[in-house]
Amino acid sequence: MTETQSTHMESTAYDVVVLGAGPVGENVADRTRAAGLTTAVVESELVGGECSYWACMPSKALLRPVIARADARRVPGLSQSVQGPLDAAAVLAHRDYFTSHWKDDGQVRWLEGIGADLYRGHGRLTGPRTVTVTGSDGGRRVLTARHAVVVCTGSRAQLPDLPGLAEVKPWTSREATSAQSVPGRLVVVGGGVVATEMACAWQALGSRVTVLVRGKSLLNRMEPFAGDMVAEALTEAGADIRTGTSVKSVTRENGTVLVVTDGGDRIEADEILFATGRAPRTDDIGLETIGIEPGAWLGVDDSLRVSGHDWLYAVGDTNHRALLTHQGKYQARIAGAAIATRAAGEPVHAEDWGAHAATADHAAVPQVVFTDPEVASVGLSLAEAEQEGHRVRAVDVDLSSVAGAGLYADGYKGRARMVVDLEDEILRGLTLVGPGVGELIHSATIAVAAQVPIGRLWHAVPSYPTISEVWLRLLEAYRDA
Amino acid sequence: MTETQSTHMESTAYDVVVLGAGPVGENVADRTRAAGLTTAVVESELVGGECSYWACMPSKALLRPVIARADARRVPGLSQSVQGPLDAAAVLAHRDYFTSHWKDDGQVRWLEGIGADLYRGHGRLTGPRTVTVTGSDGGRRVLTARHAVVVCTGSRAQLPDLPGLAEVKPWTSREATSAQSVPGRLVVVGGGVVATEMACAWQALGSRVTVLVRGKSLLNRMEPFAGDMVAEALTEAGADIRTGTSVKSVTRENGTVLVVTDGGDRIEADEILFATGRAPRTDDIGLETIGIEPGAWLGVDDSLRVSGHDWLYAVGDTNHRALLTHQGKYQARIAGAAIATRAAGEPVHAEDWGAHAATADHAAVPQVVFTDPEVASVGLSLAEAEQEGHRVRAVDVDLSSVAGAGLYADGYKGRARMVVDLEDEILRGLTLVGPGVGELIHSATIAVAAQVPIGRLWHAVPSYPTISEVWLRLLEAYRDA
Repeated sequence: MTETQSTHMESTAYDVVVLGAGPVGENVADRTRAAGLTTAVVESELVGGECSYWACMPSKALLRPVIARADARRVPGLSQSVQGPLDAAAVLAHRDYFTSHWKDDGQVRWLEGIGADLYRGHGRLTGPRTVTVTGSDGGRRVLTARHAVVVCTGSRAQLPDLPGLAEVKPWTSREATSAQSVPGRLVVVGGGVVATEMACAWQALGSRVTVLVRGKSLLNRMEPFAGDMVAEALTEAGADIRTGTSVKSVTRENGTVLVVTDGGDRIEADEILFATGRAPRTDDIGLETIGIEPGAWLGVDDSLRVSGHDWLYAVGDTNHRALLTHQGKYQARIAGAAIATRAAGEPVHAEDWGAHAATADHAAVPQVVFTDPEVASVGLSLAEAEQEGHRVRAVDVDLSSVAGAGLYADGYKGRARMVVDLEDEILRGLTLVGPGVGELIHSATIAVAAQVPIGRLWHAVPSYPTISEVWLRLLEAYRDA
Repeated sequence: MTETQSTHMESTAYDVVVLGAGPVGENVADRTRAAGLTTAVVESELVGGECSYWACMPSKALLRPVIARADARRVPGLSQSVQGPLDAAAVLAHRDYFTSHWKDDGQVRWLEGIGADLYRGHGRLTGPRTVTVTGSDGGRRVLTARHAVVVCTGSRAQLPDLPGLAEVKPWTSREATSAQSVPGRLVVVGGGVVATEMACAWQALGSRVTVLVRGKSLLNRMEPFAGDMVAEALTEAGADIRTGTSVKSVTRENGTVLVVTDGGDRIEADEILFATGRAPRTDDIGLETIGIEPGAWLGVDDSLRVSGHDWLYAVGDTNHRALLTHQGKYQARIAGAAIATRAAGEPVHAEDWGAHAATADHAAVPQVVFTDPEVASVGLSLAEAEQEGHRVRAVDVDLSSVAGAGLYADGYKGRARMVVDLEDEILRGLTLVGPGVGELIHSATIAVAAQVPIGRLWHAVPSYPTISEVWLRLLEAYRDA
C-alpha cells in the first residue's frame, strides 16, 4: 500500500474483526465483547444473515402451520374442523412478520447493544490481520485486528451447470422461503433438507409439487427410513416424487418453466427450486492475499482456527464442519471463548469436550427436519458409525408401540433407531421419525454429547404417557436383542 | 390352619407372587419371568390397573384434543378453522377406545404371553411368603412364594371426612376419567395434578368448571409459576378458580349438588370431583398377619424391599416414593431384577444408580401435566433443593425469548427454571411451562439422572429453531448471573 493510498483510507484498530453478521458472526461478537475485546462486524447484506431472512426463520414460519394442521387432523373431536386448506395469505403474512419484513433494525440494535461496531459493506482481507471494507458508495475503510479475524460469511445455494439456467430465474432457498405468492406448479430439484422441507411447505400451501431426486431417496444422509417415511407422506399429500432423476435441461417460455429430465420426462411448472447443495461464500473475501485459495471451504482445528494462520478463524458454514445454524452458533461461542482466552494469555482447553473445542461437531450434531412427519436425528447414523470403524449395534422401534404416540395422533406412524457403541455401551446416534418428535431429540443430544452409559440411561425415566417413552422401548430392544 | 381347612384349599408354590396387575405388577412379572422365575399375579379388578382404565390413558385421551386445539388456535392460517367447540362425543368415544371399553382381554393375553399365572380374586397375605386368593365365588387358593411377595396394589382416591358425602355420589379420579356425558356444571375440589388436568379437560369439553383449592395456588408441589400460569389459562378458558377455599358441606337434592365453602359461598353443580389425595390400597391385604399395620404406606429400601421382611417388596404407589405410573414401572424393573439376582445368589448392585437401586426416585422423578399450557418437571424444585440442604441457584428464562417457541405458537407464553447445584455444577431440577414442552422434559431427566456437568451441557447443542433452545438460554442465564 502506498503512502498516498493510506492517507485516503481511514484505518481503525480492533481486537477482533468479524466478517459476516449472521447468527454466527453475532455470536462470535457477543463472546468477544463479553470478554472486553473491541470488536468490529462487517456485513454486506442484512444483519441477521441467511437464517433470519432466507432460511430457518421463514422456512419454519411456513412449516409450522403445516405441521399443526397435520397434527390436528389426527386428533378425534378436532379433525373435522381442519379438513380445509390452509389460509396461505395468513401464513405468508406471518412469515413476513418473522423475517421482520426483511429489515434488520432490530438486529442492528442488538449488535449496538453488545458494544460491537457494525461496518456495512463488503469486507475483504487485504493481508494478515487486515480487512478492507468497501461500502455501497465505494468508500473504503481499513480495519486491523490485534487478535483475530473471524470469517463467518456462510454459504450460498449452489446451482448446477445447466445452459441458460440464469434466464429461467430459478428459485434457490432464498426465493423458496421469501416468495410472496403460491406457485400453481412447483418443481423441486434435490432431496436434502431444503428440498424436502420446501416441498412439504408449498404442497400444503397449495402448489402441485414435483420433486426430482438424483439419488434413491430423500434425506439420504440420514437413516434410510427417514427419507422413505417423509416421501410416503409427501406422496399421500399429493406431491409427485421421482427418484433416480436428474434435470437434463430447463427453459422458461411465456412464464412457464419446462423441465426435461435425463429419462426424457417433460414437466411444466410455474417455478423451479434448485436445492442442490451449498457453496462457501469465500470466493471474494481476499483469501488470496494471505495465500489461501478463494472459494475454498476453510479447514480449521477444534477451536475453529484456520490451519497455518494463528489469527484467522472460520466459524459456521465456511469451515464445512456442519452446515446448520445451531452448530455455527455453538462454534461461535467456542471460537469467541478461544480468542478471548488466547488474547488474555490464559490456558486453552482444546481437549475433547473442553471449553475451547467444538467436539460436538464430530460426534453430536442434531438436526430437525420440520416436515410431516418430523425427522430428528443426532450423532451418527448406523452407516456413518460403521464407516468410522465403531463396533455398533442398531436397535429399531416402531413408534406406534408407544402409548404416548398413539395418544398424540390417531393412527400414529413413526420409527426410531438407536445406534449403540458396543465397546463403551454409549449412544453414537439416534434418529426419530414421526409427528411431534422434534423436541424429543434434545434428550438424545445430551445422551450422546455426555456419553451417558446405557446402564445410567435406564435411570432416566420417561414420563408416562409421552412419546419420550420410546427411550424405554429402545433400551428394552437393546437389552433383549 | 387346621388340617380340615387345608384339605379344602388348593396350595400352589411359585417363586414370586405379585399382588396387583396394574402396570407395576405387570412389569414386576415381566422381569421375574424373564429371569425364569415362576410367577403368579393376583388381581381383584381389571388387569391393567388404574392407569389403563381410570387414570393415565383415559385422562390423556380426554386431554390430547384439548391441547391440540389450543395449539392449532395459536397458528396463523389455521386458527380460524378451530374456533368452534370440541366434538365432545367424538372425544369421549375415543377415550372409550383407549380404555378398551374397560375390558382387559388384551392385557390378560399379554400376561399369559410372558408365562405368568393370573389369579382373579382378592389376595391377602396369610403369613410369611403366603397369599390366599379369594375368588368372586368365595373359593380360596393358597399361593406360596419361594423368593418374594410383591405388593403392587396401588392407591385409591382419598375422600375428605364430610358428613353425608357418600349420598352425594361425588366423582373421584375414576368417574372423572370414565364419565359418559359432559356435566353442565362441575365443581373440582383440589389443586393437584388430577384436579388441574380434569378441570382443563371438562372445561374444554363444555362444562362450566369451578375449582376449589385449599391452598394459595394450583400444583403447589411444583415451582410456583407452574400453578399460576395454568390457573391463568384456565381462567381465560372460563373456569372459576377459587384459592384459599375449602368445602364446608356438600349435599345433593333433585340431582343438583350444593357446595357450601368455608367462606360461605354457595355453588350449585351437576357433579363434584374430589381430587384431594390418595390412600394406599394396603388396608385389606393381610398385612396384620406379618406384623405390619394395615392401611399404611410401606417403607422400602432402594431395591423396593420392605424393611424387616427379606421376602416382601412394595412397588409403585404403596411405597409412597413417587405416585406416578412411570416411576412405578421403573421400580418394577428394578425390584424384578433385584428379586431375580437374590434368587440366583448373585451380587446385588444396590449402590446409588446401580442396577438394583431405584435412585431416580430421590433425585430424578419426571412429571408432565397435560394441561394447556403443559407443565413438565424433573428433580427438585428450588424450594425442595433448599430444604434438602443443597447449595443451589435457580435461573429462570421467559420462553417467549426462544425463537422456536414463538414459531410454535403465536403469542407464546411460557417459563423455565433450572436449579443448579453450585457444589458439583450439576442440575438438580428443571421445570418448564408452556405449549409443547411435554416431550422436552426428558432431556432434563437424562441430565439430572446422569448428573451431567454444566460444562458438558454446553456441548449438547439444541437444534434451531426448536423450543429446546431454552437450554441455551438457561445455560447463558446461569453463566451470566
